[in-house]
Amino acid sequence: MHKSLNEIAQHLPANVLAEDCPSRAILQHVTSRWGTLILIALAPGTLRFAELRRRVQGISERMLAQTLQVLESDHLVIRTAHEVVPPHVDYALTPLGAELAVRVLSLAHWIEENLPALQEAQT
Amino acid sequence: MHKSLNEIAQHLPANVLAEDCPSRAILQHVTSRWGTLILIALAPGTLRFAELRRRVQGISERMLAQTLQVLESDHLVIRTAHEVVPPHVDYALTPLGAELAVRVLSLAHWIEENLPALQEAQT
Repeated sequence: MHKSLNEIAQHLPANVLAEDCPSRAILQHVTSRWGTLILIALAPGTLRFAELRRRVQGISERMLAQTLQVLESDHLVIRTAHEVVPPHVDYALTPLGAELAVRVLSLAHWIEENLPALQEAQT
Repeated sequence: MHKSLNEIAQHLPANVLAEDCPSRAILQHVTSRWGTLILIALAPGTLRFAELRRRVQGISERMLAQTLQVLESDHLVIRTAHEVVPPHVDYALTPLGAELAVRVLSLAHWIEENLPALQEAQT
């Protein structure tokens, strides 16, 4: 019996360099202009929308809401609505999101620590 | 004597969450749609333009040239013109770029390895 292309693709290792690999789409979400900064801002713990917006300096309400939705659909961020008075909503990393945030933080911290060398290189 | 704002800023630790910190601009270059994939493709070693374009599936010549220029200006990638017959140009990670690529690869590999869990989460 012949295997379908889909069946074969399921057994290929994921590869972000391959145009059609779904891992590339998730990498793009995680490394999007605001996606990276939201994961970094949520790394220390749960935040409400307004607090998150203050941490990620320069983000608009619209971009924050939109990027949170993408990260939620990748199951990296979880949104919790609290039915209290007054009601409020907060955002946290899922266990998957927290594992990923470790890698994103490592990348960001490396840049922060090596900024003098990176800037010197530019002059 | 009062210190200028610039002098104070130079002694603040870099912080990608701060809107004006130059580390944020470099993070954006590194995590741009194609920047990430180019760093990953160059991690195993030096490549010519056409080889690099084949590895980073789906990139246009224009976007490859443009993104390479940004990574060169950050001193993460080095372009070498070989004055042979026929002349050719190749691209490699600088020592700084290689250190950074380790972090980018760790992020990409985590996504590739966790793709089943990330996709399951979406259904």
